[in-house]
Amino acid sequence: MMKDIYLDHAATTYTDRRVLKEMLPYFNEIYGNPSSLHETGRKAAKAVATARAQVAAAINAKPEEIYFTAGGTESDNWALRIALAGKDKKDCHIITSAIEHHAILHACQQLEKEGCAVTYLPVDEYGRVSVDSVSQALKPNTVLVSIMAANNEIGTLEPIREIGAILKDKPTLFHTDAVQAMGAVPVNVEDWGVDMLSMSAHKFYGPKGVGALYVRKGIKIVSFIHGGAQERRHRAGTENVPGIVGMGKAIELAQESLSEESARLTTLRDKLINGIIERIPEIRLDGHPTERLPNNVHFCFKYIEGEALLLSLDAEGIRASSGSACTSGALDPSHVLLALGLDHGTAHGSLRITLGHVTTEDDIDYVLDTLPGIVERLRMMSPLFNQQEGGKTLV
Amino acid sequence: MMKDIYLDHAATTYTDRRVLKEMLPYFNEIYGNPSSLHETGRKAAKAVATARAQVAAAINAKPEEIYFTAGGTESDNWALRIALAGKDKKDCHIITSAIEHHAILHACQQLEKEGCAVTYLPVDEYGRVSVDSVSQALKPNTVLVSIMAANNEIGTLEPIREIGAILKDKPTLFHTDAVQAMGAVPVNVEDWGVDMLSMSAHKFYGPKGVGALYVRKGIKIVSFIHGGAQERRHRAGTENVPGIVGMGKAIELAQESLSEESARLTTLRDKLINGIIERIPEIRLDGHPTERLPNNVHFCFKYIEGEALLLSLDAEGIRASSGSACTSGALDPSHVLLALGLDHGTAHGSLRITLGHVTTEDDIDYVLDTLPGIVERLRMMSPLFNQQEGGKTLV
Repeated sequence: MMKDIYLDHAATTYTDRRVLKEMLPYFNEIYGNPSSLHETGRKAAKAVATARAQVAAAINAKPEEIYFTAGGTESDNWALRIALAGKDKKDCHIITSAIEHHAILHACQQLEKEGCAVTYLPVDEYGRVSVDSVSQALKPNTVLVSIMAANNEIGTLEPIREIGAILKDKPTLFHTDAVQAMGAVPVNVEDWGVDMLSMSAHKFYGPKGVGALYVRKGIKIVSFIHGGAQERRHRAGTENVPGIVGMGKAIELAQESLSEESARLTTLRDKLINGIIERIPEIRLDGHPTERLPNNVHFCFKYIEGEALLLSLDAEGIRASSGSACTSGALDPSHVLLALGLDHGTAHGSLRITLGHVTTEDDIDYVLDTLPGIVERLRMMSPLFNQQEGGKTLV
Repeated sequence: MMKDIYLDHAATTYTDRRVLKEMLPYFNEIYGNPSSLHETGRKAAKAVATARAQVAAAINAKPEEIYFTAGGTESDNWALRIALAGKDKKDCHIITSAIEHHAILHACQQLEKEGCAVTYLPVDEYGRVSVDSVSQALKPNTVLVSIMAANNEIGTLEPIREIGAILKDKPTLFHTDAVQAMGAVPVNVEDWGVDMLSMSAHKFYGPKGVGALYVRKGIKIVSFIHGGAQERRHRAGTENVPGIVGMGKAIELAQESLSEESARLTTLRDKLINGIIERIPEIRLDGHPTERLPNNVHFCFKYIEGEALLLSLDAEGIRASSGSACTSGALDPSHVLLALGLDHGTAHGSLRITLGHVTTEDDIDYVLDTLPGIVERLRMMSPLFNQQEGGKTLV
């Protein structure tokens, strides 16, 4: 039978069957509009409240600090707008990093057009933001520091707690895009000292189309989407009740299995990383060797186009990525890899393999059996490779 | 057995079983990210393309003119932003009506804060915008006319085609919020002459959390949500694949049954309207007597609080609304009813009953048997009513 091994869990996960089961009644049994005062509506409102409590519990927040959105991108965009609430944009400064998701970077670029000043902090060769660089970039008018908890391409974990500590007692708000971190590592808004935090359900076995933004109590909130009085007047639009219910259940399940699953995935991840390093020359492990998401494997293969590599893997039933799914189709090399200091040629030969609940050791063995031959074949066809006489591993 | 009659279909509909069946595989079988290049992703992308074609076909648009969103509110907010693309807001004028959904009105108020000028056209006693008033309000810098196709509270159909005709060949864009009209009356962007049109799946037996914005080809689009390259770089965020698939199927089913179901509902609606008028004095039918949604019944009952009325109905198993679900909890009377010229007292005693696929003639009979007694009982407790010696029907 044809192999079909999904190793692109950073792009999206399937919806867990237990999550889907929880969602189903809300499509055509308890289908009311939570804003309706009648019983059908009240039942739906109750389900939303339960999910809000589940999400809050998972990050050590209060339920009233959780706002449901349509996903991580909306949450990120909204967080930036909240930081600017009631302020003259032309007198606002934002600090972020060069390797944020486009939901932050493109939104920041939009804010720059509107007059904001934005500092894009560099990262080290492993993709880590330096805490000192945050301190040094702070200005009297810095309204927000937005640094992701874990990078979506290379999996590097950022020093969120340390950044939170230096921003404590400062008026500057601290936001983290925890879209990749949620469900993979412990997330605790108090421990981290963050004021806002973005999440997306479909990254932790919940449904697509629903996310949340945590906003610490006391912060003045401006709406991003204007209309009805939903989400305590702060996020208009009829609540996606089945999606919200699914997000609550998914986050609860993720918490239950977090430490065990994290250990299991780390073992598989390191087997895959070490196996690839042993078998294939002229490669570079991207991201931090240890401070990385338990499910993330990311390499650059010299002399190869990432797209050709992943289509070759696809033909063998291995579903991987050349980087972020959100920028597929773009010809430019990843902004994350360029920020690590890689040249365009190396950055083009990238491969991201992200493991998940269904990943087994057999899957890892299959990748280790399959990948080296594909890399060799693609390199044989590469004019650049043929100009070389061989080479040395870049790791 | 306790009655449970849902008559609040304007607030939200259940998801049709055929729609849900179509959605299910996309949660945990074909669960890829449509932006992923591998087979799992391509299958998801194909499903989104199919849904886009279904939505386009239903409104006589081209698939590339359909952009999926998280719902009607986002679509409305986005349409306003598109109209302002590349323009100095301080030199922009928008025409809308006093009875639009808050997704337009509150977003317009936000734009006013940002410097836009907005004209809120009055409506007649039936809630109709006059076509002449649109002509008269047009200014050289009018960038947008946004008039809803059908009002969400009183069900009045607006003269969209006629407004489209006077805006034809003018640079002013024409947007319509068709959230309530979709699936209830024929919607045809060419026939109507609209440039942008908002939809929400959960109003026509599709899932909550997904909508679409039609934007006529050639119109310069600016993003409302910034990030990844989804929706041809115009609407960032991983696509809600199951939701989008559901929306496509729901719109297709709605088209198939539209004329038959519309006739059936109109008969039931008129039976209910006439029955209420016959049975209960001192009431006012709100909205146009004939130019109204086939499923909408809306009355004001003098001397009564709408909330007390709907909770009394709820206790008898009848799930209705005092107006828009989106503003529940607000103490102010409906802006729509005030725009009709009603006094606060009358506007407070409002009841919206909206029929749907599941509504039977028995349900209508049950409402007609139940409602008069409730109204009488509430009026007996009303100090205002007891000051009267009786009165005359306001219709």
